[in-house]
Amino acid sequence: MSEIKEECGIVGIKCPQKKSLAYDVYFGLFALQHRGQESAGIAVSYDKRKIYYYKKMGLVNDVFDEDVLNDFPVGDCAIGHVRYSTTGSSNVVNAQPVVFYGRFGRMAVAHNGNIINCDSIKSEMMKQGHSFLSSVDSEVIASLINLNSEEGLLSGILKSCTKLQGAYSLVIMADDKLVAVRDRHGLKPLVMGKRGDEIIFASETCALDSLNADFVRDVQPGEIVTVDENMNISSTFMPDIERHSCIFEYVYLARSDSYIDGRSVYDMRYECGKYLAELYKIDADAVAGVPDSAIVAARAYSETTGIPLVDALSKNRYVGRTFIQPSQSLRENGVRVKLNAIKNNIKGKRLVLIDDSIVRGTTSKKIIKLLRDCGAKEVHMLIASPIVKFPCFFGVDMDSKDKLIGGYRNEEQINEIIGADSLHYLPIEYLIKACGGNEYCAACFDGKYPVDVEKYNCGKFVLEI
Amino acid sequence: MSEIKEECGIVGIKCPQKKSLAYDVYFGLFALQHRGQESAGIAVSYDKRKIYYYKKMGLVNDVFDEDVLNDFPVGDCAIGHVRYSTTGSSNVVNAQPVVFYGRFGRMAVAHNGNIINCDSIKSEMMKQGHSFLSSVDSEVIASLINLNSEEGLLSGILKSCTKLQGAYSLVIMADDKLVAVRDRHGLKPLVMGKRGDEIIFASETCALDSLNADFVRDVQPGEIVTVDENMNISSTFMPDIERHSCIFEYVYLARSDSYIDGRSVYDMRYECGKYLAELYKIDADAVAGVPDSAIVAARAYSETTGIPLVDALSKNRYVGRTFIQPSQSLRENGVRVKLNAIKNNIKGKRLVLIDDSIVRGTTSKKIIKLLRDCGAKEVHMLIASPIVKFPCFFGVDMDSKDKLIGGYRNEEQINEIIGADSLHYLPIEYLIKACGGNEYCAACFDGKYPVDVEKYNCGKFVLEI
Amino acid sequence: MSEIKEECGIVGIKCPQKKSLAYDVYFGLFALQHRGQESAGIAVSYDKRKIYYYKKMGLVNDVFDEDVLNDFPVGDCAIGHVRYSTTGSSNVVNAQPVVFYGRFGRMAVAHNGNIINCDSIKSEMMKQGHSFLSSVDSEVIASLINLNSEEGLLSGILKSCTKLQGAYSLVIMADDKLVAVRDRHGLKPLVMGKRGDEIIFASETCALDSLNADFVRDVQPGEIVTVDENMNISSTFMPDIERHSCIFEYVYLARSDSYIDGRSVYDMRYECGKYLAELYKIDADAVAGVPDSAIVAARAYSETTGIPLVDALSKNRYVGRTFIQPSQSLRENGVRVKLNAIKNNIKGKRLVLIDDSIVRGTTSKKIIKLLRDCGAKEVHMLIASPIVKFPCFFGVDMDSKDKLIGGYRNEEQINEIIGADSLHYLPIEYLIKACGGNEYCAACFDGKYPVDVEKYNCGKFVLEI
Amino acid sequence: MSEIKEECGIVGIKCPQKKSLAYDVYFGLFALQHRGQESAGIAVSYDKRKIYYYKKMGLVNDVFDEDVLNDFPVGDCAIGHVRYSTTGSSNVVNAQPVVFYGRFGRMAVAHNGNIINCDSIKSEMMKQGHSFLSSVDSEVIASLINLNSEEGLLSGILKSCTKLQGAYSLVIMADDKLVAVRDRHGLKPLVMGKRGDEIIFASETCALDSLNADFVRDVQPGEIVTVDENMNISSTFMPDIERHSCIFEYVYLARSDSYIDGRSVYDMRYECGKYLAELYKIDADAVAGVPDSAIVAARAYSETTGIPLVDALSKNRYVGRTFIQPSQSLRENGVRVKLNAIKNNIKGKRLVLIDDSIVRGTTSKKIIKLLRDCGAKEVHMLIASPIVKFPCFFGVDMDSKDKLIGGYRNEEQINEIIGADSLHYLPIEYLIKACGGNEYCAACFDGKYPVDVEKYNCGKFVLEI
Repeated sequence: MSEIKEECGIVGIKCPQKKSLAYDVYFGLFALQHRGQESAGIAVSYDKRKIYYYKKMGLVNDVFDEDVLNDFPVGDCAIGHVRYSTTGSSNVVNAQPVVFYGRFGRMAVAHNGNIINCDSIKSEMMKQGHSFLSSVDSEVIASLINLNSEEGLLSGILKSCTKLQGAYSLVIMADDKLVAVRDRHGLKPLVMGKRGDEIIFASETCALDSLNADFVRDVQPGEIVTVDENMNISSTFMPDIERHSCIFEYVYLARSDSYIDGRSVYDMRYECGKYLAELYKIDADAVAGVPDSAIVAARAYSETTGIPLVDALSKNRYVGRTFIQPSQSLRENGVRVKLNAIKNNIKGKRLVLIDDSIVRGTTSKKIIKLLRDCGAKEVHMLIASPIVKFPCFFGVDMDSKDKLIGGYRNEEQINEIIGADSLHYLPIEYLIKACGGNEYCAACFDGKYPVDVEKYNCGKFVLEI
Repeated sequence: MSEIKEECGIVGIKCPQKKSLAYDVYFGLFALQHRGQESAGIAVSYDKRKIYYYKKMGLVNDVFDEDVLNDFPVGDCAIGHVRYSTTGSSNVVNAQPVVFYGRFGRMAVAHNGNIINCDSIKSEMMKQGHSFLSSVDSEVIASLINLNSEEGLLSGILKSCTKLQGAYSLVIMADDKLVAVRDRHGLKPLVMGKRGDEIIFASETCALDSLNADFVRDVQPGEIVTVDENMNISSTFMPDIERHSCIFEYVYLARSDSYIDGRSVYDMRYECGKYLAELYKIDADAVAGVPDSAIVAARAYSETTGIPLVDALSKNRYVGRTFIQPSQSLRENGVRVKLNAIKNNIKGKRLVLIDDSIVRGTTSKKIIKLLRDCGAKEVHMLIASPIVKFPCFFGVDMDSKDKLIGGYRNEEQINEIIGADSLHYLPIEYLIKACGGNEYCAACFDGKYPVDVEKYNCGKFVLEI
Repeated sequence: MSEIKEECGIVGIKCPQKKSLAYDVYFGLFALQHRGQESAGIAVSYDKRKIYYYKKMGLVNDVFDEDVLNDFPVGDCAIGHVRYSTTGSSNVVNAQPVVFYGRFGRMAVAHNGNIINCDSIKSEMMKQGHSFLSSVDSEVIASLINLNSEEGLLSGILKSCTKLQGAYSLVIMADDKLVAVRDRHGLKPLVMGKRGDEIIFASETCALDSLNADFVRDVQPGEIVTVDENMNISSTFMPDIERHSCIFEYVYLARSDSYIDGRSVYDMRYECGKYLAELYKIDADAVAGVPDSAIVAARAYSETTGIPLVDALSKNRYVGRTFIQPSQSLRENGVRVKLNAIKNNIKGKRLVLIDDSIVRGTTSKKIIKLLRDCGAKEVHMLIASPIVKFPCFFGVDMDSKDKLIGGYRNEEQINEIIGADSLHYLPIEYLIKACGGNEYCAACFDGKYPVDVEKYNCGKFVLEI
Repeated sequence: MSEIKEECGIVGIKCPQKKSLAYDVYFGLFALQHRGQESAGIAVSYDKRKIYYYKKMGLVNDVFDEDVLNDFPVGDCAIGHVRYSTTGSSNVVNAQPVVFYGRFGRMAVAHNGNIINCDSIKSEMMKQGHSFLSSVDSEVIASLINLNSEEGLLSGILKSCTKLQGAYSLVIMADDKLVAVRDRHGLKPLVMGKRGDEIIFASETCALDSLNADFVRDVQPGEIVTVDENMNISSTFMPDIERHSCIFEYVYLARSDSYIDGRSVYDMRYECGKYLAELYKIDADAVAGVPDSAIVAARAYSETTGIPLVDALSKNRYVGRTFIQPSQSLRENGVRVKLNAIKNNIKGKRLVLIDDSIVRGTTSKKIIKLLRDCGAKEVHMLIASPIVKFPCFFGVDMDSKDKLIGGYRNEEQINEIIGADSLHYLPIEYLIKACGGNEYCAACFDGKYPVDVEKYNCGKFVLEI
């Protein structure tokens, strides 16, 4: 069984009085569905130290219907989770939130990210006599917090966070409190919102919008925000904070109508398109973007260069993202059914085709072939980010250098495989500029991991369970 | 129980030798998923007069997984169906294809459209002692063809078609033949394709593309195309052919990468946007389209007027179309989760917002409010089709004048409800011009029904079953 | 696919006012569960010409839970069905009641028995243009009745019954009436009961008991009893009535607490044991019966001979009858898990073992081996019925002479296979005497079929569908 | 939520080489189905420290079909569990075996019994930072063993067992060993068998029989039997062993073809009937037993007194035991459908009716009424055990004195409620004699609990979770 990687979405809500919170979490998760399509779960705290929960494999809409939502009790605190993972762990026992009985009665935890020293923490705890029911990080995080909380939940979280290495944004429901945590690098996004006197945490601002809540601020790297039973909000910080927000959230993962750490994802993508236009002048008849995420950059390219923008590809709205399909065989079939060409917009044209990134390269190759089959005279490909050269150990499914088309290849070598007339990537400095100049983890592009991945055996050692 | 309305998609494939046809039909149906999300079914003829089938409520992807597809026998003929219908009939017994034992052993029929004299045909057959298991048109069509086929399948189809009033595109599998039928008005689309020596029929060309098949031609209004056991193709025509293709297929129903009756849906939508630009000059800062179907028209408007195009709205790709949601309560919640605003593109701007049509008006009202809430200074709405004033009796879910916002209102009165700064529709003559000038059924706009709907009691009499 | 054989149970209830009839039918079916464990279904008429129904594969308890029963509307007429069939047709489309739309609006039919000229009726109807959705007799019966009812339901039933050859007890719900029908031979049982002003029909009296209803009388061979909308009861008779009630109902099929045609099944089985005692004196230490159906005969044998009765075998109450298990492989495993020996009662003893009948012989062989393994010194087997020599074409699953252990063998030859110390069967004249001396169909024992089975190609021709 | 009580069945198998063990466990569980009908589960150890498992709500036959069994890998060790519990905990998270990752890789535990100090152990462990996912004893037992195993599995089990108060028979699969444990009182039965070179443990000998295994011996009170990876068998004993085997296993719970602690359950029940005959001479025409468990005692009564034995009641074999039905409402309906009377055997007769025990009294009352309604002149009731006066805290569902009909009543007062002509119970000394004179826990009859139930707050304190 392979190591588990996750790209997930989380939501947490706390209100002063009881209400049908399951519906709110449901709509929040629905807005975050793009972050994980494998399982979904909601936990509602309905009485002192009691929690009702429901989680299942499937899309938010499949897991929760009105019957299921109506079965939830009213409550004043709730969290939710959507999860994507690689095939090996497609099992409901690995779905989140993790809910158990511990020091504080029932406790629930939802997690986005990847803990790279999870196996060593787990082994250590096992040596002390702890046992685990699933193979997910989240259970380890939850158990560790519970174990460390002999002097209270907050001190338990703080103590645990100094041990956890890697990426984690968490919402925790225990002891009648809702706690939101973002790791000391701020790798995974987490925002705080407000609707009337309710406090809402979510992976992205689009979830706040869907709940008609106002954005308050980003949870800061290393910050632990607690909303207690009286709705008092307080903040604590972990030691050794060094911001390294995941730059790939902007490139691909986040929804374009979200803001991450103050920067509009839409605007950032637009700017990448503008930079491509400045860098790569191509003698072409039309510009097109690969839907959906590269349409924005394509528009920017067109508006900057004056080359007309066309819709070259039509996407079947009933497929998930290629990137996010579990098996390789499905991935290959995926493209055939996912994209179709708008022939009249292509025939006889010299095209500039813009995509946000290339991970494995299979999709790009098929698209270029499709466009040529439909009469494109030339296809010049521009990528709105640098070459993906390194695996991610923090929750994004790019698991080894040799599965990445750019792992050991330069632009020219990559283009030999995908078959465009020309291929160019956006240099890293432009990407960072577009993101607004913060400190980022761009390790998938430059290999500079914010933590010592060698030490934690990332990509080498896999706990066999 | 209310009268049944359907908007459906159909596929039929015939090949010279046996193969795993279920997979092909599956991919074809997947491309037609936008035509119906309620149920899906596939029937494969695997031996002389024998048919294996599987149908269930749900999306194509939910109904068919690899286990289910592998259970299908290899065969040389297969048909498939996706279905949308109003709530009342959400029952698997109404799913298609309809498969039964009749004169030719097993027979299977898949139907897109609505037969307006179905009740009288049914009553007549019942008087003769026939019985029916479901409440769908398709069973009546299938039984009628079987009943009339004493001199052969083709003569049975021809005889039956002279009785059936209304809209129907059919694929029929019986007597080792695949037959494709389009009603004498050509109301519903139906195309024929070829892949090697295989013949494929489908509701739209996008299904041919997804199967990597070449488009051969449209099935003509009133045409009955037969592919026999030796792959011989022959054509017969019904009497009284008068083309009245459904214009709403271009406006909204079809995928923009499809061609209907030789006209590119994408180009048609682009032209509508151009006409809007010519007709309605608005002093605005930006143009935006309601995703997905109105984006094309918005681009055309922008390119014609020079007013910059922006993305004002972001769509959650995991929702189906608002138009196509069963219950009213879900419909209202739908908007909240379906669309979000890209605030930076809106704030302080005078916007032109383009949509393809307005049916009930609820969505438009919410969108305009959303845009104003996000800081839009003005919202001028343009609709790329005329006012929907009349119900459709041919398979599109617009069931009574008083549920249509334009049923008894003019532009101004409609705008009072939806609350834009101004509202304009595209006049009918421009719409027809954009479609390529064929003969259309535009009854939902002009009330000119191609058949005598009074005579068939449409919208008045509902057979209570 | 093999010809379909059924042993089924049916229930019908009519009351003067509406009530939650589904619960009553449920309890009635539950009492008849021994007659069929493959599928169960209930149909309730809840409004003029309208019927709600639910049917599924599984035991009554699995198919219906409180949620499902509560979904049924209140009604004044209802029917139900439990079904057993051979593997080939284990498909929900073959479950009963058959419900469809016909001359009388919705009509529902439940059937116990087997129509031997079903294929020719079906073929004839198909030639006239009728079609069928399933492969069960019941749909043919129902369609035929509907077809023949141009002058009313009753005349349609009467006309149809003169065409149907074979065994059928029916309950029919149509035209606001409940009709109970028993074929002209009275092959399958059918009784009428009363509870207050409600009329109840059922396959066996034990269902009346479970509903706390009083037994009124048996429906007579060839009788058609109608309970109309005003609770008026009337009777009509078919021509050519010749009683040939199925003797195997007494031997094995019916529950011992039921009465069939006025005769207590328990008393009949007791008498068979007495006759065995008179005929076969065996020098033994103990008598035992094979549970459950032969315990009664064993007690009679013991009480007549004075040889003590012991429990030799213990039955796992969670298995169905061996006889009634679908697949051969399951049948063989079945015995291992179905019966265990009470060793202390067996060890060192010379046993008389009594069973009701031997069909395939597999079970008997295993039991005898089991008893010897547990220390029995001798095992003398007595069968409370004659050798089963001929297949049944009327709904009992004994399908060909060569699958019957007694098909071509006498007592001695059979015993060579099953391995008892001695083996004796009850002669037919004693069996008939025990049953009360009516006219019976004992064709499985004597080959005298009440209808011309050669003519109808029974056991030879199988319609391939 | 109420405290959880369980009556369960367990199986464990260890063999020298890998095979399809899931099938064997399945047949073993099937033989133990009477011990629990709520959920079933199987775990197979298929590789060093790896375990595959499957558990679900439902009967053994419903949970496991051939597909599910074939999904299990081959293995050399396996355990299984069937479970009955009160309504509150009918949740799959509470199904067994409990399987988790711990010191030994995967570990699996199946448990029959009830730990009365479970809450205090749980609280203590929680204080140390442990967490629990379910609310069942078994998870606490499993976690405790894992926690205590720092010096090896066996020492961990031994250490844990000195802490656990109450009833438990366990099979444990960990560290490539199979371990069987019986509490120091021997409250719950557990036997060891052998088939070739395979070792099998099971709750009752009937499971060994069904697997065609030979009975070796009972696991002794306080014994821990280990079968290691090389099939070496070794035994260890806990301190403070005092045999108090549950006497109710003989009275009602066990199958009559089982042997418990060397005593045949059948013979014991027969002897109880003989004692009743000696104690209570009644002037009657016939004796009958309530099926199934009291039939044996009735036969003994008849054979001792000479009063003829009759079958008065017929039981629907598709119902579980009344005693073992979850909800009160179902329990009441249960009787109506569960038992019917054989009228001819009752009418005009003075009956002695024998039952094994009376817990709540509802069933007895209904049976007596049923017999009188069917014409019995007199009904004298004899119970083959004493009055149930006290709740059981060790896994049998008799939860409070006031729900027991005999909680505060004597024979006469009980009879006033159930309405027999006379009522007598078997005195405790006779019961103990019939069981063979061992040391028993007969606390439900005499209130002498083998552990200090006051101290552990049994029946008072319920951990609210």
